[in-house]
Amino acid sequence: MSTNLPIAGDQSGDHWSAHYSIRAAGWTVSDVRALFAVASRPDVVSLAGGMPFVSALPQDVVQDAVSRVLREQGAAALQYSSGQGVLKLREQILEVMELEGIQAPADNVMVTTGSQHALDLVTELLIDPGDAILVEAPSYVGAIGVFRSHRASVVHVDVDDDGLDPGDLRAKIQATRAAGHRIKFLYTIPNFQNPAGVTLSPARRSEVLEICRANDILVLEDNPYGLLYFDRPPPASLRSLDDSGVIYLGTFSKTLAPGFRVGWVLAPRAIRERLVLANEASILCPSSFSQLVISEYLASADWKAQINTFRGIYRERKLATVNALAEYLPNLRWTDPNGGFYVWVTLPEGLDTKALLPSALEAKVAYTPGTAFFADGDGHSNLRLSFCYPPAEEIREGVRRLSTVIPA
Amino acid sequence: MSTNLPIAGDQSGDHWSAHYSIRAAGWTVSDVRALFAVASRPDVVSLAGGMPFVSALPQDVVQDAVSRVLREQGAAALQYSSGQGVLKLREQILEVMELEGIQAPADNVMVTTGSQHALDLVTELLIDPGDAILVEAPSYVGAIGVFRSHRASVVHVDVDDDGLDPGDLRAKIQATRAAGHRIKFLYTIPNFQNPAGVTLSPARRSEVLEICRANDILVLEDNPYGLLYFDRPPPASLRSLDDSGVIYLGTFSKTLAPGFRVGWVLAPRAIRERLVLANEASILCPSSFSQLVISEYLASADWKAQINTFRGIYRERKLATVNALAEYLPNLRWTDPNGGFYVWVTLPEGLDTKALLPSALEAKVAYTPGTAFFADGDGHSNLRLSFCYPPAEEIREGVRRLSTVIPA
Repeated sequence: MSTNLPIAGDQSGDHWSAHYSIRAAGWTVSDVRALFAVASRPDVVSLAGGMPFVSALPQDVVQDAVSRVLREQGAAALQYSSGQGVLKLREQILEVMELEGIQAPADNVMVTTGSQHALDLVTELLIDPGDAILVEAPSYVGAIGVFRSHRASVVHVDVDDDGLDPGDLRAKIQATRAAGHRIKFLYTIPNFQNPAGVTLSPARRSEVLEICRANDILVLEDNPYGLLYFDRPPPASLRSLDDSGVIYLGTFSKTLAPGFRVGWVLAPRAIRERLVLANEASILCPSSFSQLVISEYLASADWKAQINTFRGIYRERKLATVNALAEYLPNLRWTDPNGGFYVWVTLPEGLDTKALLPSALEAKVAYTPGTAFFADGDGHSNLRLSFCYPPAEEIREGVRRLSTVIPA
Repeated sequence: MSTNLPIAGDQSGDHWSAHYSIRAAGWTVSDVRALFAVASRPDVVSLAGGMPFVSALPQDVVQDAVSRVLREQGAAALQYSSGQGVLKLREQILEVMELEGIQAPADNVMVTTGSQHALDLVTELLIDPGDAILVEAPSYVGAIGVFRSHRASVVHVDVDDDGLDPGDLRAKIQATRAAGHRIKFLYTIPNFQNPAGVTLSPARRSEVLEICRANDILVLEDNPYGLLYFDRPPPASLRSLDDSGVIYLGTFSKTLAPGFRVGWVLAPRAIRERLVLANEASILCPSSFSQLVISEYLASADWKAQINTFRGIYRERKLATVNALAEYLPNLRWTDPNGGFYVWVTLPEGLDTKALLPSALEAKVAYTPGTAFFADGDGHSNLRLSFCYPPAEEIREGVRRLSTVIPA
């Protein structure tokens, strides 16, 4: 069963529909989308979106960075720049990645319009229609969307509390190849995974890399949340363990703000060269204005202290979430992440979280049904709670409201 | 003969090259690229790039807009927004388009990461590999790049001083269909065309629309320069004459600044709906920060007066270009545009502008060889002079230097 419906255009006598590409014919709109319009009403506690709590960012710090950029580098900030991104920012990105043990030359980094565009460009570089991508079950809805848009075949790999299961990874590689599909890469979010909240254990990191190396499969490591740990840093990043078989994606959307749309990709040189060609064809260059403002912020503000502030806020909200679940919904199962934005909740077999969503919205609480995070229609008995945006007291009230609509 | 070479990765034992998509295998790097590194040296007069003269923008006006946005809408500016773009900005974009006679609902507008991304998304929506796109000969190098990247077949249509030739358009439609290719759209820059500088005449606008309607071919109207006319406004835009068969692209890159990467697409409703899905898959949403800053600029600054300022500057520089050509290179032919950024120069048959470029750079002047603007290797005896960036005196000196390397 699909979680998506063709958009209205199909049925409404669109004169140009016969002109659409094969690829476009598969683009679908989520059927929970209409419901989410309700979720943004102020009386609804939204545990649905993944919006970072940008209000924790001191406004004058951004203001100062912008003012300095316009005063000192105004012409450059307003002008076109290079398709690879501003060199100074790429060097500063190396400092950010050093915090996760990554060593790399600035030349292997390309700045992107958020890490979503990096995902899009990497997929464009690697995927012909029908090629397979190994993807955690569940995984980031936006990645599944990009993979679908490129007509890839998404092959799900099981996840447990220690992350991606290497045994199932081996089994899926074998089965996919036996079925005649080419596997191009493994897409994984090793730290505080979206949506499951789990982290890949150190032993499994080595094992996953070994399996992929042995099978000539690239690893696409997506790491938006790694620096947002609560108690202890996550294990060494995959890229820090393997610099030739891993493409690494990072972003300023969670450690600074998503409104700038600035992320990056770190890749082996030959791949990075091709990604720049793809980036230039797609957007000419990333925003100079955004890049220089972030560069100035990194140069002049105490950005590590700001990340600590975010960590404290999200830690408190995660605690509010799991404590409220223990109090109001003790019969459910949930993950207890050590970082990031998400708790993954499992309802008793037979309950359907998509079917329950309208009642939840009526009770003024929103979540994301589990089916959004699978390409194969699985996830009916799961839901994702995002604790990143509402304050702890609202989260508690949201979970209480949720308990009124989930049958005991 | 191709103007492009495979990139180094092909030859250098790239371990992952067998993993690349069919599409990526065709991505090429321009062979004049290395030469352009020279063009950015301060002692070289560059008539090559298309960089707007952003220094004419008063710095405090942008500063004020940013400060107000951060003070009054800071959280929104730093947050994710919608894939279609901020509503208020889309409404203001309607006011901009009204200046060119366009009436439309804000719902049919989508904000993009520069109009380059609009080009990419429209091509993705419409093109399967091998589909044909009708394209002026010559045309915008970045459009040819996108069309190639999507493996479209570029079919060139002749251009003269009145723009696209309707007779040749008819002939090319017939020939392309006779060869068994599907034609998806006509791509045209009707005003002060890049690179030819010519403008489509009023009579031809109606005729081109009629031909495309009769042949069920969409028109993609790219209009970055329409408001930058010198003496009189260009004729009515194609979109103002036909709201169901034209997709219109606009941008703030030339009337404000390219560093924000904000453009837009106006399309019939069903097409706009699908473009939003493509935009979301590609980048989630355009930058809130850039959108709100531009919205605030449009709301509080005298943006029409600013466009008048740009017009005056570019008018003077165009005059400097054609006057210098008349003085130093009277035996060549060139176009005399009434707006935009470019003069298209034709050398006597037998001269090769790409072969002449190294000597020109040695004489400390840069231009773009004509071959860059054709998909079929034509344009050897042409070159494009961009008069947008250097002051009039430098342009004059640049053309003088050029005259020393072009055989009389």
